[in-house]
Order: sequence, then C-alpha cells, then structure tokens
Amino acid sequence: MSDVNALLREIGQKAKHAAARLVTLSPEIKNRALLAMAESLVARSSQIKEANLKDLEAGQAKGLSGAMLDRLMLDDKRIASMAKALQQVALLEDPVGEIYDMHVRPNGLRVGRMRMPIGVIGIIYESRPNVTVDAGALCLKSGNAVVLRGGSEAFATNQALAEIMDAAAQTAGLPEHCVQLVPTTDRAAVQAMLTLNAYIDLIIPRGGRSLIELVVKTSTIPVIKHYDGNCHIFVDESAEFEMAERIIINAKCQRPGVCNAMESLLVHEKIAPQFLPRVCKMLQERGVEIRGDQATCKLVPGAKAASEDDFRAEFLDLILSVAVVPSLDAAIEWINTYGSHHTDAILTSDHRHAMRFLSEVDSACVFVNCSTRFSDGGEFGMGCEIGISTDKLHARGPMGLRELTTSKFIVFGDGQVRS
Amino acid sequence: MSDVNALLREIGQKAKHAAARLVTLSPEIKNRALLAMAESLVARSSQIKEANLKDLEAGQAKGLSGAMLDRLMLDDKRIASMAKALQQVALLEDPVGEIYDMHVRPNGLRVGRMRMPIGVIGIIYESRPNVTVDAGALCLKSGNAVVLRGGSEAFATNQALAEIMDAAAQTAGLPEHCVQLVPTTDRAAVQAMLTLNAYIDLIIPRGGRSLIELVVKTSTIPVIKHYDGNCHIFVDESAEFEMAERIIINAKCQRPGVCNAMESLLVHEKIAPQFLPRVCKMLQERGVEIRGDQATCKLVPGAKAASEDDFRAEFLDLILSVAVVPSLDAAIEWINTYGSHHTDAILTSDHRHAMRFLSEVDSACVFVNCSTRFSDGGEFGMGCEIGISTDKLHARGPMGLRELTTSKFIVFGDGQVRS
Repeated sequence: MSDVNALLREIGQKAKHAAARLVTLSPEIKNRALLAMAESLVARSSQIKEANLKDLEAGQAKGLSGAMLDRLMLDDKRIASMAKALQQVALLEDPVGEIYDMHVRPNGLRVGRMRMPIGVIGIIYESRPNVTVDAGALCLKSGNAVVLRGGSEAFATNQALAEIMDAAAQTAGLPEHCVQLVPTTDRAAVQAMLTLNAYIDLIIPRGGRSLIELVVKTSTIPVIKHYDGNCHIFVDESAEFEMAERIIINAKCQRPGVCNAMESLLVHEKIAPQFLPRVCKMLQERGVEIRGDQATCKLVPGAKAASEDDFRAEFLDLILSVAVVPSLDAAIEWINTYGSHHTDAILTSDHRHAMRFLSEVDSACVFVNCSTRFSDGGEFGMGCEIGISTDKLHARGPMGLRELTTSKFIVFGDGQVRS
Repeated sequence: MSDVNALLREIGQKAKHAAARLVTLSPEIKNRALLAMAESLVARSSQIKEANLKDLEAGQAKGLSGAMLDRLMLDDKRIASMAKALQQVALLEDPVGEIYDMHVRPNGLRVGRMRMPIGVIGIIYESRPNVTVDAGALCLKSGNAVVLRGGSEAFATNQALAEIMDAAAQTAGLPEHCVQLVPTTDRAAVQAMLTLNAYIDLIIPRGGRSLIELVVKTSTIPVIKHYDGNCHIFVDESAEFEMAERIIINAKCQRPGVCNAMESLLVHEKIAPQFLPRVCKMLQERGVEIRGDQATCKLVPGAKAASEDDFRAEFLDLILSVAVVPSLDAAIEWINTYGSHHTDAILTSDHRHAMRFLSEVDSACVFVNCSTRFSDGGEFGMGCEIGISTDKLHARGPMGLRELTTSKFIVFGDGQVRS
C-alpha cells in the first residue's frame, strides 16, 4: 500500500513537472506531437496487437463476455481509427492562451482573461482502450498533462498505447511524462490517485455508475462526472404529429444503448388520445416495449404498467416509459423530478412554451423540436468530447477542449496605483 | 446531532423549493425585492441594533478583542451602508437567462448556451455581519437560494438581518426561504450542512485559513475557496524605477492587511544594486520591515535575514520579504514555487517578458505594470464580488454574479433527427 502511494506520488510529481513545461508550448509543437503519435500508433501496430492479444487471452480465461471481448479487441482498422482521431484533435483550434473579455477601465487599466490549461488531469475509465488515446490527446491539446488509470482487462493494451504516445510526443519536442498510465492493476492505486491533491487538479471518471460513485466517494480532488441519461421528450398539445413521430422514433430507436437516447415520453393529455396510439404502434413495430402510466395503458394496446422505478430508469434498451401529463407545468415538474438532468426536449409550435421549457427544465441540455440524440460534443460543433458533465460547476453538458481549461485574469497597466 | 441533521435537511428542502421558483422570476421582481430589503433594513434598524447589542454584550463577556467587537458592531451608518450595498446589487446586470455562443450547425440546428442559477448556495463565514447582507443579495440577484451560516459571535445580528431580508423579499413577490440563516450556533450544524448534497449545490467559505480548511476537509459538496494571498511583484531589469517605486509603495503600504497587498518583492540582479537600496529606504520610511535574502541584506541597511517561511508567508502587515533573482525564468519559477497563486505582477518595459510572465505565472491574476491592489471584483468592473477564488475550476480570481451561475446548452430545431 505505501509502495503504491509512493508510486502515485512519483507519477504525480512527474505529471506536474510536465504540465509546467506544456503550458509554455505553441499550438504548432503540440499538433506536431499529436501527428507523431498518430504515425507511431500505426507504425508500431504489431506491438499494440501483441499486447492486446495478451489482454484478450486473459479476458477469455477470466470468462469475459463476447461483447466485452469485442470492446477490448484492437485490429488494424481500429488502430487506424485511433490514429485518425489523433489527427482530428490536431486540427482543432487550440484554446490555450486565448485572451477574451478584454475591456478598458476608467483608470486606463486593460482587464481581461486568458484561457490556460488546468494542469494535471486524471482519467479513470473502464475497458475500451480507445479512451487511452482520445483522452490523452484531448488533455494534451489543451495543454494538460494526463494520468490515465484504465480497466485491468485492458492493462497491457493501455500500457503499450500510453508508452507509444509518450515516446512519440517526446520526439516532437514535448517534455516526457505528458501522458502516463498508472503502471499497476492494484486497486489501491485508485485510492492513492484520488487523494493526490498536490499534483492532480481534476479527476474525470468514465464508465458505469458504480465506478463513478466510487470515484466521487473517494476523491478529495474535484471530480466532473456523468451519471445517468434518463432523457425525456415532452409532446406539447401544439406539436406537429408527423415531426413528433419522426423525432421520437429517432430518439428511441436510432441507437438505444447510449446516454442521449430517449428513455421517457410525456404527452399532453389534450392530444394523447390521437397521438399516443399512433406513435406507440410505430415504436412497437420497431421492437420497443412500452411501459405506461394508467392513461397510457388505456390508450395503447400492448402497453405494460410502468412502475415508479421505470420512470426513473435509464434503460439503454428498446424500452420506453410513457406518461400523460395535464400541462406544460406538469411536464416540467415531472422532468425535474424523475429526470437525470442530462438532455430533455419539448416538441411544440408554441413559442412561449418552448422558451419556458428552456428556462425551467433544470438539465444540462434542453432542446426544442429535435432529437435528444444531438446531445454530443461533435454535434454541437465542439469538434470532440471528453465526456458529458451532469454536474453544474465548471462544465455542464458535453465537454470539449475549452472545458479542459481554466482562465486567469490579466491586467495591462501603465503605472496605475490604487487610491 | 440527529436533530441538527433533520433541521438542516428541512432548511435544504426549503431552499431547493425556493430555488426552483427563483429561476423563473424576472430581473424586475428580483430587483424590487433587493430594494425592499434595503428599505426594510433601515426601517427596522432598531430591531437590528437591539440584536446587535445582545451579540456585543455576549462578546464582551466572552472577552472578544476591541477589534473583533468593532467588526461586529452595527450603528445607523453601517446599516445604511448595508442598505446601499443592496441598492447597488439591484443596479447590476442580471446574468440569468443570457443566451450566448449561439451558432448554426450545418443541419440547421441552432446551438447555444443559456446562463442559469446554480441552485442553492451555502455560505459559511465568520464575524462581520455585512456578509449576511452582501452574500445574500448576490446569491439572490443571480437567482440562487442561499443558506447562511455565520459566526456564533454575530448570531443574533445575523438572525435579525436574515429574517428582515427574507420577509422583505416576500413582500416583493419572491418565494419564502430565498434567504435562510441556520438557526443554531451548534457546531454540528456545519457538518450537517456540508454533507447536504441533495439540496446544496455549492459551498463558499469566507474567513480565515482554519475555517476554510475545515470546510474543504468536511464538505462532500463542491467548494470554491480562497486561501492565502502571498502576492509578488517582480521588478525586471528594464523596469522604470520611478514607476516601480510608486507601484511597490502602493502595493505594500496602501492597505497592508488585505489579501491583494504585496508580500514579496523580487528584483532582477542587474538592477538590484541601484534599485533595491532606494526602494527599501522608501518602504522603511513608511514603517515596513524588510526581510531579505543574502543579496538583499548586503544591499539594504537594516534588512533582516528572511527565513524560508518568510518567503511563503502572507504577512497582512508592514513586513516584506525581498529576494534578488538572476532572470525572468528564475522569477517565474520562484513565484510558482513560493507564491499562493493569487495575484502577481511584473514591472517591465520588455514586451516579450511581459507576455511570458502573463502566460507562465500560474496565478489567478497576473498583472503588468500596476499595483497588485487592483485584484478586486469592483476594480475589474464586475460591480461586486462574492469572494476571490484561488481554485482553478469553475471560477478563478474575483467572483462576480456570473460566477454564481452555471450554463445549459439550448438547441432550437425544426424537426431534425440524427442519422
């Protein structure tokens, strides 16, 4: 245990040292490093696949499911796609050093803000090895050093990836230890990492709820996290039926296993008798199981009675909870009570209802007349995404490069003193 | 203990309920409430003074120092000045609902952000009762409900102030419980408050280091804090002596007891022999004690040898640590090592040095050619300040109304679905 603490402290010190150098580097050098990393991943793909094979064999021996093994597996195509992701991050605008909000005070002081890296970011994540590459690249592009702690099933693969990235970065002129992977699967290392306040500035956990809860409970470092996506669509009485059907089917069926898929449908009671049977039939034809409140069950053949838990659930599956509500107010209150504050949409033709929904639904993303599936950094034009925050402080919703930075106040004076 | 927990839970629930209402209110109604609160403070000043007298008598009996009693004391003038502060907050621009970063995506979606209240803010603070009014007003103006926990010495005063504010707010149409004071001096209440994650979104402690450390250690809610202000001025070799002297004297002597006063002076070795004796003499004439490194002690008559601790200290007094450094690089490294990441300034004529100092000094506020004393929300044009954050996440440096808000993504669609 004390060995693990010493190991993590050493990693933290190295990361902090790298971060102090990283903050001084131009976008050009960082981009060169990202491209060198991409090249190196492809050039050294046999080393990656060898390490990956070790993980796959160990996974099979441990009895991992086929789906788990598939998520773990890297072939040339997947390695090429990781390399491409690095090249895309190189193309993104560098947020570091941007000066904004500059204004002149009556005494002639020029006051503004400059965007700066946060420092050292710790990422704690599960199985999929592409997170090693993606998260590493985004942290580095935003000028941060990164300490990665991946899942034990992908340990050998992650080690190979991190080593290749760090080495390639150095050939491009970056300091060593910009990208470090915690070199042990010892669980005590997570605890040690989460209390390294002197060296790590921010922890981002990526994975299932139990991982995130563990991190939140243990960490003394600030955490930005993503809990459930229990996303709602409310169909207001003035919604256009055809548009509503198209959006609802897209939000539920296009990719039901992701956090921005719709999990709960609310329909205004005035249109429920006409609208609900139609849309639910279309959903059922696509294999969706309907779990409704009493009013829904009366209107929709084949609907099962929903429990209280169903209305709070993130199914990540072809299951939908449905309720009939008497008003916009009731819909807003329902969403704020049962929702997970992730992404919620209103379908309406009524401007005032649209604007009230935007203001009063207490969620990271609030949409009018489109699918919840757009809740994504790429779709929002951020170019990338390190995750989606369901927190309210620092970052809320999809987090891009800018959310991996902080700011400082800068002041240009000409001899001013305070009187 | 369990009674205190139940009490705090009840306060939290009430605050959360008030917050849900507050988010829907127009700037006009909030401003009317602030003005009603100002009026009511003056109209009910005898009630306030009566409560204050109780605190003062208890303080005298407990043997509080004269300075402590003076900070606690309220008379008509101080009450009028609290009322004026409320009127000024009413004049500030309301950040809530502001839509920004709006842009159109290729598919026609309009994506942007809307500034929203954080929700419920907990303020934990010591003695001075004006914090009750200031913090309450800023939280309310930014649409947040507030739970206040003041120092026990000011308990009766704070209770009177909070009760008057909450009652006046209600007459103006605000929900009840927008401003609540924890109605007990029981220390267990602090612990209970700091773990109310279900109801309180953010904790801001205001007070001495031991209070802040206690809050950071105990709180499971995000905390934005302000540790020491060990502010530096670095006099580069190209600095203009006369300007440098004016700034240094202002930064050290104008108000030595505050967090943005200069505590440490660094001078480039090339100019130290000419500059240091001059400026130190001027400082000594104003009663400043010089604690220098070896080089300084050789150059400055009357300088004492500084210890390592002196270079890390926030004196808040007419004491200054002084060191001679060989280069800009050494100055930056010194400040990042010994400083408190609050406010640091360079005095220079060299543009490149100025820009490097701004980028590489890892502090909340970094200045060129002006006094550190300008590190203040009012001086920065924010109109007010709830505190200065020495953290990096969410808010860094002086915190105004905007820093008491979060954002949500808003998307206006026209039937878009994801393919």
